[in-house]
Amino acid sequence: MDILHKVGARSASPDAVYGALTTLDGLRGWWTSDTVGDTEVGGVVTFRFTEGVIEMEVRELDPGRRVGWVVVGGPDDWIGTTLTFDIREDGDFTIVLFTHAGWTEPVEFMHHCSTKWAVFLLSLKALLEMGEGAPHPHDVEVDEWD
Amino acid sequence: MDILHKVGARSASPDAVYGALTTLDGLRGWWTSDTVGDTEVGGVVTFRFTEGVIEMEVRELDPGRRVGWVVVGGPDDWIGTTLTFDIREDGDFTIVLFTHAGWTEPVEFMHHCSTKWAVFLLSLKALLEMGEGAPHPHDVEVDEWD
Repeated sequence: MDILHKVGARSASPDAVYGALTTLDGLRGWWTSDTVGDTEVGGVVTFRFTEGVIEMEVRELDPGRRVGWVVVGGPDDWIGTTLTFDIREDGDFTIVLFTHAGWTEPVEFMHHCSTKWAVFLLSLKALLEMGEGAPHPHDVEVDEWD
Repeated sequence: MDILHKVGARSASPDAVYGALTTLDGLRGWWTSDTVGDTEVGGVVTFRFTEGVIEMEVRELDPGRRVGWVVVGGPDDWIGTTLTFDIREDGDFTIVLFTHAGWTEPVEFMHHCSTKWAVFLLSLKALLEMGEGAPHPHDVEVDEWD
């Protein structure tokens, strides 16, 4: 089972989108401000939240086109799942197709994470369009799990 | 394939959430301001957007607990899919578990609709918590399809 999303950033180049997904400064601008690690292929990036830590191994980097991660640390439901960001230009927009694939059950946490991913991807869009996202701890609350 | 989401509205009763999902005034407050039709079981509710119209037959109404719709008019990918809102109280929140089930393919439109559903469910949360949602045509743009 997969979580799917799509956002489009106006007047942002594919390279700018790729940069926001593949540099520590970029990632700190939309997902969590406490991001450390190695963003090269084979490296592990650690994303820290109040509620816990997520560790992603970078699996695929195709500049301006595609970023792929696999979850190597974090909530049990996340371990081994994969994250993919497919990037393309379309008129005045750069589009990101997002897939968080490999959930084994449609647990309530999957419902929560799906809504929360939308919030963070809209934060990515805001970062690219306006220069400022809303990364954790400034992210929008969706429910009692935050 | 299903789109899943979860939102929680603070200090809103299950009855208030149910009302926002089962009355024309409620639906106009968070999804689209141009909503007409019959909200009883077996009735059809028509939701009008700039881009087109969606018609839902009301399949299930369990007051304060559950609302179920089936899509009888709208985009080809939507026809025959089902929408379910499961409602429950949890501490200071009323939780809504949302499922848009029965997509046959993970098409780009499914990615778009997943992000857009998050936007509208956060509009529902805002309506319940603050008295004002952001229904179409005042909804948040997510991409070039709006």
